[in-house]
Amino acid sequence: MSTASDRTAPGGTRTPVDARSGALVSLDDIVAARARLRGIARLTPVLTLSPDPRWQHVRLKCENLQVAGAFKVRGAYNLMAQLPPDTLSRGVVTYSSGNHGQAVAWAASRLGVPAVVVMPTTASVVKVEGARMLGAEVQFAGTTSIDRKLAAEEIQRQRGLSMVPPFDDARIVAGQGTVGLEILEQAPDVTTIYVPAGGGGLASGVAAAVKASRRDVRVIGVEPEGAPKMTRSLEAGEPVTIDLIGSIADGLLAVRPGDVTFAHVRSLVDEIVIVNDDEIGDAMRVIAREAKLVAEPSGAATVAAARRMAPAGSSGTHVAVLSGGNVSLETLAAILAG
Amino acid sequence: MSTASDRTAPGGTRTPVDARSGALVSLDDIVAARARLRGIARLTPVLTLSPDPRWQHVRLKCENLQVAGAFKVRGAYNLMAQLPPDTLSRGVVTYSSGNHGQAVAWAASRLGVPAVVVMPTTASVVKVEGARMLGAEVQFAGTTSIDRKLAAEEIQRQRGLSMVPPFDDARIVAGQGTVGLEILEQAPDVTTIYVPAGGGGLASGVAAAVKASRRDVRVIGVEPEGAPKMTRSLEAGEPVTIDLIGSIADGLLAVRPGDVTFAHVRSLVDEIVIVNDDEIGDAMRVIAREAKLVAEPSGAATVAAARRMAPAGSSGTHVAVLSGGNVSLETLAAILAG
Repeated sequence: MSTASDRTAPGGTRTPVDARSGALVSLDDIVAARARLRGIARLTPVLTLSPDPRWQHVRLKCENLQVAGAFKVRGAYNLMAQLPPDTLSRGVVTYSSGNHGQAVAWAASRLGVPAVVVMPTTASVVKVEGARMLGAEVQFAGTTSIDRKLAAEEIQRQRGLSMVPPFDDARIVAGQGTVGLEILEQAPDVTTIYVPAGGGGLASGVAAAVKASRRDVRVIGVEPEGAPKMTRSLEAGEPVTIDLIGSIADGLLAVRPGDVTFAHVRSLVDEIVIVNDDEIGDAMRVIAREAKLVAEPSGAATVAAARRMAPAGSSGTHVAVLSGGNVSLETLAAILAG
Repeated sequence: MSTASDRTAPGGTRTPVDARSGALVSLDDIVAARARLRGIARLTPVLTLSPDPRWQHVRLKCENLQVAGAFKVRGAYNLMAQLPPDTLSRGVVTYSSGNHGQAVAWAASRLGVPAVVVMPTTASVVKVEGARMLGAEVQFAGTTSIDRKLAAEEIQRQRGLSMVPPFDDARIVAGQGTVGLEILEQAPDVTTIYVPAGGGGLASGVAAAVKASRRDVRVIGVEPEGAPKMTRSLEAGEPVTIDLIGSIADGLLAVRPGDVTFAHVRSLVDEIVIVNDDEIGDAMRVIAREAKLVAEPSGAATVAAARRMAPAGSSGTHVAVLSGGNVSLETLAAILAG
């Protein structure tokens, strides 16, 4: 089983959280991440879901408008910016079929260093071309995340690159946590935050940021019915690997939480809510029609949860993290057509 | 023919532009409008069209994220906020099948006054329900804009309401002009601005704002092939009524520029560009896929023009006003499916 120290890049840097020690990312770590991200990540807007007077309590933190179309650049850049210059200059490698790969490619191009993204042999042309457009080298390996991870680790060793893991690293968690800091400042009356739970990096970071200064704000993790890895792991008291059923929320299909992220979710997230694909599709339609935004299914899952848990006319201020907008036009058109 | 003084509301206020005198809205008028709109209209973001490095020169002024889903609230509120309190409190009336009606309904609800919106008998349920959701009374009259205008004027007289015309009024132009001020501040390196030309209110206001302080910035009006009223009127040297062919850009189908707006466009807009429906559809797809935003066809027309006139790798900074996002899910899905 990998641990925080295993994941440290070659020639690497301090990783403040060790999964075995149980230490969590601190507010200082997240504030430092925000300083690194200044001029890199966008301060994305917080917008109301709808002009409907009965829905003014639901707001969207619009990470679909983040550079590269998702929150992922926050964590990826925060990790890469902490690598020693001679380590960084050799380049980075990651494994991802989705938003994290795009984010690493984007961050590497901003830092002027090479990036390799290992994708499945079944990756869509859109995703392959997206990473190449941002200057990354794309390598292909098998069809499972294990295949990709092993291939990325082999490339890491052969070329002396630094690994940028998708979620289970304290520097990734601290970067994603900047979303939480921004929500507290942009919506100071917030009472509840809904954050997607895939591998758990964003949920961990947002919860760490929020609970450090506003314990009264509820943080609710949201996962799809077809991949309830957080719910099952919390029931078991430790990270467990689930049998994947699948979901349109393709960014939330991790089959096991990370060790670092599970420690954060267990300590800091108030509740995990499960949504189904019909609710996610409904949320995507409401987001397009009312908020004029494109959400990917994984990004709309939080809105689905907020609509169910805080229906029309509810009190409080409910902020759903709309985590990304990277969805093919074919899929989007099919879902919008209902 | 209506004139600026005819259009002054009952008990009305000074209208700084008289079409016959040729005086244009001033920078002071627009700065005053911005002060009135503080806390009412959103400062919408300026975002890049695409993460593609070859397309960093094209930016979007995102008025689809404006309250009520379009820029129209700027002009409508700016007019209404200048009515004397006892006049305003009697309420307002307008005629519109689209975004202006929603904007008047929204502004009236914010000001706590009644609003009547006259729509065609063929108006879609979505638009009728949209105005009602915001508290407006909806009346129906015929199928043409003349039918609606006459019915609205009758209601104005009978009930002592104030008319909020859709574009041909200096207070409307000044309100829309705040978009131009914001672009200059948010993208100080701007070289070219693309603005849609329907009745001409937004094009007039943006050009007035920009040319007052930055004559070097080109302002390009964009109209659909099926409704080239500005091109024909500029050729004729006066506002002319065209035979409407039609376009998917349903917000740009005015058959005649206003008198106030024509005077502004003739004096201040550098060029009018005509785009066709295929280009508009392509632009909507790029906006959804790359910028993660929902544009209505009328809002995507400017992006179509920018993509043609400033192709991949062009120099300069080209800001397209994405003027609105009010499109039915059925139409959106059909266009995104290509």
